Parts: sequence; C-alpha cells; structure tokens
Amino acid sequence: MEFFLDHKDTNTKARAGRVVTAHGTIPTPVFMPVGTQGTVKTLLQEDLESAGAEIILANTYHLALRPGVETLTSIGGLHRFMSWERAILTDSGGYQVFSLSKLRKLDEDGVTFQSHIDGTRAHFTPESVIDIQRAIGSDIMMVLDVCPPAGCGRFYAEQSLRQTTEWARRSREHAEGSRPLYGYDQAVFGIVQGSVFDDLRVQGAESLVELDFDGYAIGGVSVGESVEDMYRVTRLTAAALPEHRPRYLMGVGTPQDLLEAVSSGVDMFDCVMPTRNARNGMVFTSTGSFSLKKAALLSDAAPIDENCGCPVCRRYSRAYVCHLFRAREISGLRMATVHNIWYYLTLMREARLHIAEGSFAAWKEKTLEQLRSGAAIQVA
Amino acid sequence: MEFFLDHKDTNTKARAGRVVTAHGTIPTPVFMPVGTQGTVKTLLQEDLESAGAEIILANTYHLALRPGVETLTSIGGLHRFMSWERAILTDSGGYQVFSLSKLRKLDEDGVTFQSHIDGTRAHFTPESVIDIQRAIGSDIMMVLDVCPPAGCGRFYAEQSLRQTTEWARRSREHAEGSRPLYGYDQAVFGIVQGSVFDDLRVQGAESLVELDFDGYAIGGVSVGESVEDMYRVTRLTAAALPEHRPRYLMGVGTPQDLLEAVSSGVDMFDCVMPTRNARNGMVFTSTGSFSLKKAALLSDAAPIDENCGCPVCRRYSRAYVCHLFRAREISGLRMATVHNIWYYLTLMREARLHIAEGSFAAWKEKTLEQLRSGAAIQVA
Repeated sequence: MEFFLDHKDTNTKARAGRVVTAHGTIPTPVFMPVGTQGTVKTLLQEDLESAGAEIILANTYHLALRPGVETLTSIGGLHRFMSWERAILTDSGGYQVFSLSKLRKLDEDGVTFQSHIDGTRAHFTPESVIDIQRAIGSDIMMVLDVCPPAGCGRFYAEQSLRQTTEWARRSREHAEGSRPLYGYDQAVFGIVQGSVFDDLRVQGAESLVELDFDGYAIGGVSVGESVEDMYRVTRLTAAALPEHRPRYLMGVGTPQDLLEAVSSGVDMFDCVMPTRNARNGMVFTSTGSFSLKKAALLSDAAPIDENCGCPVCRRYSRAYVCHLFRAREISGLRMATVHNIWYYLTLMREARLHIAEGSFAAWKEKTLEQLRSGAAIQVA
Repeated sequence: MEFFLDHKDTNTKARAGRVVTAHGTIPTPVFMPVGTQGTVKTLLQEDLESAGAEIILANTYHLALRPGVETLTSIGGLHRFMSWERAILTDSGGYQVFSLSKLRKLDEDGVTFQSHIDGTRAHFTPESVIDIQRAIGSDIMMVLDVCPPAGCGRFYAEQSLRQTTEWARRSREHAEGSRPLYGYDQAVFGIVQGSVFDDLRVQGAESLVELDFDGYAIGGVSVGESVEDMYRVTRLTAAALPEHRPRYLMGVGTPQDLLEAVSSGVDMFDCVMPTRNARNGMVFTSTGSFSLKKAALLSDAAPIDENCGCPVCRRYSRAYVCHLFRAREISGLRMATVHNIWYYLTLMREARLHIAEGSFAAWKEKTLEQLRSGAAIQVA
C-alpha cells in the first residue's frame, strides 16, 4: 500500500491524497460504506460501483463467525466471495469488545466472545485476528484493540491503552511473520486509543508510530462522549500522527462530524449512520436530514434532495418513497440506503475537490450553513 | 387496448399474441410480476425494466387503503406515482374477498372489509372498484368478483358465480359510463368463476362473453383445489372464451403450471410465487427449484443457475447468496427475487418463441423433463 499526499489546505489541516492498494486507488478524504457481513445492507455490489465507492469496510469478528475462515479460504478470500474487485478494509473486532461487552471476556492474551449467533465461545488474539484477515484477504487489516466506553475513568483508559499498544506490537510482529494468501499485499493499520484523555491519546499515537504502521486509526470515539470531546480528541490525535500516512477516524459520523474531522486532517471514515439511518427512514440531504415516514410527504412530488444526482433522486418522489416506508416495503429501505450512500460519498468527493482548489474552508462553512437551513424538512 | 393473435400452435392450444396498451405492447404469453402495493417487493423499477417486464400487477384493495385514492389522483395515477412507464394491470380486490375472508362481509351490493392495517371499515362495490382503478390509472382494470374457496359445495359455487356475473354486468356498465382520468384508455377484463364445476365454468364464461369484455380472466383457481382440477378447469374455461381476446389465468403458479396453461390457450399470468418464494430462499432454475439456505451451498462457487443470464447469476455464487440468507441480509432476498423474476419472464419469452417457430410441444416436454431432473439440487 502507498499513500500520496496531493494537496494540503492552507487554512485548515485538511488534506487530499490517494491510498493505492492492490484493488485500486482510493482518493481521500473518503467515506467507506459499512458491509459488516460482506454486504452493505440492502445493496448489491453494482449499486456501490455506481455510487463511486472505491473501498468498503467489512468486519473480522462477524465474518469469522459467518461464513467462517474455512469457507473464505476455500473460495479465495472475500473479494471473490462477494464479487467485489475494489478495495476492502476489515475492522478487527476491537469494536465488538466494546459493543458486545456483555458477551466477552478480556485477558492479556486476547478476548473470548460468546457468539451472538449461537452462543458458542470463540477466542480472538492479536495474532489470530491477523490470521483471519489473511483469510479474508482485506487490503487494509486493522489490529485488535481495546475500545473503552465513554466516561471510563483514567485508570481504565490507561489500562486499555496499555493493552492496545501491547496488542499492536504483537499484531505488527505477527503480520510481518505471516504472508498474504492470495498474492497481493495487505496493509496493517494501528489504532490509537486513550479515551478523552489528551496526554494518553498523544502517548498512544507515539507508541504506535514507533511500530511504523501503514496507516493510523483514531479509535474509541463516537462511543458516547460529547461532540466537543470527540472533535478535540480527533484534532489532537491527528496532529500527533505522521503526515505521510493515512489517518482513519473510526465509526464517525454525521456529515458535520466528517467535515470537522477533514478539517483536522483525517483522510478516511466509516460509519453505519448513512445505512442504518436509511433503514429507519432517515435521509441526509444538502439541506439537512429528515424522516421519510411523515404522512405529509405522501403528496410531495419532489425528489428526496433536489441537489442530488443519485438514481433514486433522479427517478422517484418523496411521496413514493414515503409510501414504501409506510407500507413497510423493502424497496424503501434500499432507496433510502442508495441515496444516503451517494450523499456521503459525494460529500467527501466535493471536500477533496475544494481542498485541491484551495477553497475548502469557505466551502465547508457554506455546506454547514446549508445543512443548518433545514429547507429539506419544510415539506410541501 | 388491442389484442393481436400472431401464431397458433398446431399441436396444442398455445397462442402467441400481443396486447397493445397505452403504456406499450406486451408480447404474450406473459408473466406479470406482482407489485401489490405499487412495488414488486425488494425491487426497484429499473430491475423490472432490465428483466424485460412489460407489465406488472398492482392491487386495488391495497392501494385504496394505502396510499389512498386521494394521493393517487393528486399525483396523476400509479404510473407517475411509482415512475413506471410500462403497463399496469390492477387486480380488483376480489381475491381479498377470499384471502381476507375473516375480515369481510359480503352482500348483494358489495363487500365490506375491515382494513387489515388499522381495522377501519371500507365498503367496496363493483362501481367503486372501477372508480378506484380510474384513480390508479391502470391499463387493465379487473371487475370485482367473488372468489369461492376450494371444496365449497355446488350451491355456494352457484351463488358466488351468480353474484360475480351480476357484478360483472354492473362493472361493465359503470366503466362505460365513466371516463379515464389521465387521457388514455383503460381496458376492462371480466373474471370467470364457478369453482371446479365444469358446467358452471362454461356458463360463467358464456355470461361474461355476452357482456363483451376486453379480455377474460380465469379466477378462483389455485385456491386449494387439486392440480388436476386446476388444469381441467383452466383447459375447459379457456376453450369457452373467444379466440380474439386475451385470456388471463389469475394467481398461477409453478413453472410447470404455466407451461400447462399456455398449452391450454392462456396468454397472461400473475403469481406471488417467484417473489414470495424468493424471500423464503427458494429459487427456480432450469433444472428445478432449491433452497438457498442449505449450509452445503456455502462452498458452491456456481451461480444459482448455470443456464441463467440474470445479473445475479452473471456475477454472484450460490455460496455468497447462501451466506446472505443465513446471515439474514436483505441483499439476499433481493438477489433471489431478481433471479426468480428473470426465470419466469424468460420462460414465457421462450414459450412465445417456440410457439412462433412451431416447436412449442417438443420444447415444453424437454423443459418439463429438465425441471424434473433436479440437477440443481445436487449441490457440489
């Protein structure tokens, strides 16, 4: 994997770059749609290609349980399994240490999950998580980390940072000592933890940088802390990371969050928000978000977003999509998902364009203002 | 609406024709995908266009409840509402008299339903059902009929046939006395009832023919009677209908059923089977049907059907679709639906081709034999 820095904004810390993988080049800043189980919910791969997605995210923990390492290996990895020729990043399962906290037990060696599917126990170590990602064949592998919950005390944050750093060392070593299974290189990203404690974040970043990862993620944000904490931690952690490596903010966020983080020098994002909210009927538009379930929309012939060029906005009305949601039709979930994914991908493409043109800061302010205007919810 | 009979098979009663509507020409025999609520479940309209669907079915009862006549009228009809430029046939709600029998009360005037959505009462008459279909703007409107359950006695069958015939007369009269709302013609089809009583079927057909409908449907089959009864009733009812009008067998059926009915001179079909079964993981293929949920498929790199040219078979493996079903992913429901709809539409296109070429009977036997071979379920 290579990372090229094409432009640096002069008014903010924003950067425009390119991540070059064996499965294509990814212009950054980039949003990675979440395909936890090897599918972005409701979409087929052709929908993602039309939307211009160059990289998607899948989840190591979920894929290890289903379809399992044996199936993935026998078929030749996740790209072939899901028929996706573009890049894939796999989350390590570290987030599940946090989100499935009632189903897991942590120790120095690793983490034992009780499967959320059938209750059987599975033990994950930093090494086994690399092995699974070798079987998946993801272009970017994430190290196993410990993600502490928001509001944890300093002692807990220190402990989990120490564990994360030690596991990062073991992951790096194991990745160096193991080989890709499918003939192309797989990058490894470290993950900075440290909760909302600024000095722990900087210390975490420095320890990882010593291990020289291909890229660095900012983890443990968007887990319940305040927006101010999230923005501050993102800013200071990004600043503590080397310029010549991509920076990935995990699990964030709203369009506003993304613009703020791009300003802080973040290059890569993933979040379930556009896809999960879509399935709840919530769509993101250039003038703010709104719910497709409101009966008032049934007489609204406008598209979801007048300023959107997605296949749904080009063809269908709010009235129709609203009807589909009220009638509990799966087509509605899919339409909202297509739209939201286009919105997120387009937002990052526009950000990149404006960074390249030197107009990022002004564009960002204008975009935020338009988002606040809320014109979208003034239904006809 | 016009109907042109292009070819008549010499060995069977099969016909190849064209139904010409204001929204395009429909080559027959044809399968009409079911879009009860103004959407074919899991699909968007572009999927139906790619599959070559020239006509879809929607349901008057369901659309009257949701989104309602007012919304449909204000938007200019169902074609505009759902952005579908091709033909639409609307079922009358007569089938709901049967399927929602616990929620309805029949009298001479019409039928009163207790809404399956919110429990409110709605009264449907032959006249109001035409009015609703005027608001929908379907290219082919169906008359309100009374569909008796399988195994009903002769007295019940006679009563419901009498009611159906009287309602057909009122429907015809009301359609003649009312005008389309959107500037194009809407055809009206009568529906033959009579349960499994041959003489009642013939009598029903004759009474309707006197009213001179644009086409004739065979209703009240596939409601629980034996396959032999269904085939016999279809054969003799089709034979009692005029040659120069399209014949539509309602709610049927398996690929085998369709081939048998085409042989009996049926031109049009609708059925939830390809779409509903798809959502249960059951796919139709050239060598028989099978369930996508079987774990053995997880290592099967073949497409669902080697002989299928649908977008799913061209790109994805059984292994992947099986994984999606086992992981309860919506994308799996969509993939199976796309495949099944292609299968049904292709089967009818091939039937038409062979009728035109004079090779229908031989092709039908070969196709039935291949379906029986069950090679599809010999998973690798």
